[in-house]
Amino acid sequence: METSTANLPQRPPAADPGQDNVARLVLKGTDQSGIVAATTDELARFGANIVSLDQHTSDPAGGRFFQRTVFTLPNLSAVIEDLRGALGTRLANFGLEWELIEARKQKRVAVFVSKSDHCLLDLLWRQRRGELPVNITMVVSNHPDLSEDVRAFGIPYFYIPADRSRRTEAEARELELVQGNVDLIVLARYMQIITEDFIEQAGVPIINIHHSFLPAFIGAGPYRKAKERGVKLIGATAHYVTKDLDEGPIITQDVINVSHRESVTDLQRRGADVERRVLSTAVEAHCEDRVIRDGNVTIVF
Amino acid sequence: METSTANLPQRPPAADPGQDNVARLVLKGTDQSGIVAATTDELARFGANIVSLDQHTSDPAGGRFFQRTVFTLPNLSAVIEDLRGALGTRLANFGLEWELIEARKQKRVAVFVSKSDHCLLDLLWRQRRGELPVNITMVVSNHPDLSEDVRAFGIPYFYIPADRSRRTEAEARELELVQGNVDLIVLARYMQIITEDFIEQAGVPIINIHHSFLPAFIGAGPYRKAKERGVKLIGATAHYVTKDLDEGPIITQDVINVSHRESVTDLQRRGADVERRVLSTAVEAHCEDRVIRDGNVTIVF
Amino acid sequence: METSTANLPQRPPAADPGQDNVARLVLKGTDQSGIVAATTDELARFGANIVSLDQHTSDPAGGRFFQRTVFTLPNLSAVIEDLRGALGTRLANFGLEWELIEARKQKRVAVFVSKSDHCLLDLLWRQRRGELPVNITMVVSNHPDLSEDVRAFGIPYFYIPADRSRRTEAEARELELVQGNVDLIVLARYMQIITEDFIEQAGVPIINIHHSFLPAFIGAGPYRKAKERGVKLIGATAHYVTKDLDEGPIITQDVINVSHRESVTDLQRRGADVERRVLSTAVEAHCEDRVIRDGNVTIVF
Amino acid sequence: METSTANLPQRPPAADPGQDNVARLVLKGTDQSGIVAATTDELARFGANIVSLDQHTSDPAGGRFFQRTVFTLPNLSAVIEDLRGALGTRLANFGLEWELIEARKQKRVAVFVSKSDHCLLDLLWRQRRGELPVNITMVVSNHPDLSEDVRAFGIPYFYIPADRSRRTEAEARELELVQGNVDLIVLARYMQIITEDFIEQAGVPIINIHHSFLPAFIGAGPYRKAKERGVKLIGATAHYVTKDLDEGPIITQDVINVSHRESVTDLQRRGADVERRVLSTAVEAHCEDRVIRDGNVTIVF
Repeated sequence: METSTANLPQRPPAADPGQDNVARLVLKGTDQSGIVAATTDELARFGANIVSLDQHTSDPAGGRFFQRTVFTLPNLSAVIEDLRGALGTRLANFGLEWELIEARKQKRVAVFVSKSDHCLLDLLWRQRRGELPVNITMVVSNHPDLSEDVRAFGIPYFYIPADRSRRTEAEARELELVQGNVDLIVLARYMQIITEDFIEQAGVPIINIHHSFLPAFIGAGPYRKAKERGVKLIGATAHYVTKDLDEGPIITQDVINVSHRESVTDLQRRGADVERRVLSTAVEAHCEDRVIRDGNVTIVF
Repeated sequence: METSTANLPQRPPAADPGQDNVARLVLKGTDQSGIVAATTDELARFGANIVSLDQHTSDPAGGRFFQRTVFTLPNLSAVIEDLRGALGTRLANFGLEWELIEARKQKRVAVFVSKSDHCLLDLLWRQRRGELPVNITMVVSNHPDLSEDVRAFGIPYFYIPADRSRRTEAEARELELVQGNVDLIVLARYMQIITEDFIEQAGVPIINIHHSFLPAFIGAGPYRKAKERGVKLIGATAHYVTKDLDEGPIITQDVINVSHRESVTDLQRRGADVERRVLSTAVEAHCEDRVIRDGNVTIVF
Repeated sequence: METSTANLPQRPPAADPGQDNVARLVLKGTDQSGIVAATTDELARFGANIVSLDQHTSDPAGGRFFQRTVFTLPNLSAVIEDLRGALGTRLANFGLEWELIEARKQKRVAVFVSKSDHCLLDLLWRQRRGELPVNITMVVSNHPDLSEDVRAFGIPYFYIPADRSRRTEAEARELELVQGNVDLIVLARYMQIITEDFIEQAGVPIINIHHSFLPAFIGAGPYRKAKERGVKLIGATAHYVTKDLDEGPIITQDVINVSHRESVTDLQRRGADVERRVLSTAVEAHCEDRVIRDGNVTIVF
Repeated sequence: METSTANLPQRPPAADPGQDNVARLVLKGTDQSGIVAATTDELARFGANIVSLDQHTSDPAGGRFFQRTVFTLPNLSAVIEDLRGALGTRLANFGLEWELIEARKQKRVAVFVSKSDHCLLDLLWRQRRGELPVNITMVVSNHPDLSEDVRAFGIPYFYIPADRSRRTEAEARELELVQGNVDLIVLARYMQIITEDFIEQAGVPIINIHHSFLPAFIGAGPYRKAKERGVKLIGATAHYVTKDLDEGPIITQDVINVSHRESVTDLQRRGADVERRVLSTAVEAHCEDRVIRDGNVTIVF
């Protein structure tokens, strides 16, 4: 079918042109004296101007070190490889993991969904408004229901039926689509198990939205469980997917007040608002390289 | 020692004189047509004026019925027994549980504490300021630490050492103190197990503050567990105590944002603010007869 | 152009079939004894079952009285006129204003917008999902930009250029569209002055979303003003439109934390999330007849 | 009378012994390349280990620069003057304002109050718990009411009657008390005008708690105004005092939901909770040197 995006009124471009000379340097490792000085000195030597710098040490005595620095540098693209090399030499003795990322290179994202549209639409719409610095390149679903909505945004929709009986086959097709093509997979209420094998072969981070305030109500049916337990708040949790169900590092959480008045259906409806907000916030933080994983927890600058 | 309350500057009386002719009628039972009409008609016959009425039905088809009505009635004390009798006759066929309470009769409360002062002091401050409609008549503790603070409010402090080895003896002494003397027991960070036997013999509701967002982090050490899990919100839960640890009906819950920056000690400090707010809110709601228990959940009007 | 709604996957109907026998009775007037009894007795006589009842008195001594009652009644449509008559007789002496509304008759809504899509889309999404009990029958805009988005929902879009120089003409065309056709007008970031004449002739409530926490930052440019003042929270306010700009009765307000990090553009983006949440909440409350206006304030049950 | 603090059970010391070798370096000025590098390099040369670093630039092109760095340095007291000198030399060409502060040297604070105890007690109690890194050395009041409470904490209470007719005399006495003796004045619901002359002569920052969400409801009676306007949230604002009433730089703000149910008295009671939370948070941030003033706004790291 024809999509209608050609007729869409002009919107601001998703990539802020002001991002052209902006880069982010993210480091983590064992805390030791001199890391901030070494990195910022090297940046200054290249003529960079630091826009923001966040640094955290988990414990002043032998803890873990985390740093995120955003800077502008004229002609960034031309000199970034030189800078990368110089930082490599300068940081060699600290034994850190680090990454230097150009802000203009948005992360390519595949969104996986089932039938619920609220998280998906929020991501697509924020991208279109130019307020989510991502490039959603495909949507994958085990149901055909949301194809029309997605294609109206000019984004390909791949329908891959999936259930227990054909998981291997479905995941193989999904891997074909995503491998080499995306930097992040977002499970936007995708109601299928993700195997350990898929996580490993996908080779990119996977963010999931769980419809409860983890670790409360792990597993299926959290709103029903919440109603039965009579809680006065319900929440949602965005986390990285690991092989342990609902146990991966948490990125963002939020809650809203509820009372005896809400039925399970009401909880689902009201909870959907929290889910979309939490997921969009987590995806934005990840795509701005503000999330650093450290074992099973995250540092979010 | 002598307490110094005699010298304390005058504060507004805890009981609002405007409460003299105010009463609350609370009903629960099986939903059926005509309950609201019967009760409000009877109130109107006596010349009562309804100030607020909240009614909830869990399910229009055969659900549970809950109603709380606040009204003013001239010469309340003189006619309340007549009203009680008339309501008894009028409501006889509905098979409800119901209670008629004079607002001026504040509930007598025993607060149980260990060493942490934050929840206790918040309750004492609020009572003294006249903003918590309760009458805290005693504080019981398994430690002597907070006696000075409590006695400065002119309230008796009973130090009853308690641990695993002398639980029976301690609970016996506690029961002597509370039986017949209090309408509510508040566990304001009382770090001792409460036995099923004590709950039964105390014969009054017991409210506990748990230092987590239940059902997450049930049991001991919730802030340490929260740090290890890397949650982005911590919370507190006020609930009625039942024989099942941390499983009783929830009255109030609240949370605050936290990040990687907080140590376990920081979480305890910041969590203490949530604990005292949640507990004071729950005690206030209970003492204004706004909480109705229904199995393991609550209706809070 | 052709809209594509015919191809849209099936979604749950907006009207919950369970609403067929549900009605709402809303009353306001001078407080006096016996109103609740009279109404609930009349409902009981007709065999109605009350699902929820909220009642509020602004002051026990000569204050204002407000009541909202939701009930089920078998064969509601058949007997509602009889019930209306009976209530009229029964309530005649109380001098109240009151309304009896069938829940299944959703309010017809016209949404007015300019170029910003966030509030509009949130309303359209929620209606389509069946979680907003309204019937959005038209969108009116002084810009053509959002026509594509709106028509994808199968809803007519009327482009009526409007500015200071042709306000009278524009309002005349708008009145032709809405008079008799809608029960509510929602200004979802409609950046044109609404004249007192229009308000009067439209003859239906008008809800506006103001992009600040009123009464802070009345008038234009609230986010810029907020940045200059250095506030740590920004908010949004949904209110009924009266002839006094930004002074009408407030229905809903909410805020979010901000810091020195946000630019004015960031405030606008983050504020948009609050605006859409606040407006959708206010529209839902209004359309469920939970908002009662009383002078320049509202009671929201 | 004798105060009873001598009998108080032992509590953890207010100064965390772990703070002995901790210092904070705070800088502000015109943004330019190399500042972070210069400061962190100098710190590294002295063997300091950075615990946290926050940096903010208001605009990458010619904006304002702000940096706060916390570090540990063995034998801090012995070398801090050398470090101060070295930083002075190193930073000379950047034209910055900067300060180097030892964490163990807590700020000396005078709290000014009238009759309301909620903000005062919260500050005193947090200091006693060791969770507020301040040294409250005196309380000044225009009423005698709270003397007993304050002296129970072992802190001097100075009663200085003040009103329009004797402002000059009262302020003169207040200045005698505070000049040279305190680093900060906190107005914890002090209901007297502070003159421009006093602000200037006191020579230290003054933090005030305003009982509304500024800039809404500037001036007297904010809760009454809030009730009349029918707002759905009420708030509090902690700000530095300048000669312009209620217009000084905002440090912290927070709000809570309210409804038609709350009377003006209820708003005052519920608002008091927000006031104490907001003021304690602001005082803590100020005393940890996390607040940087920039014209009429603040950067809060």
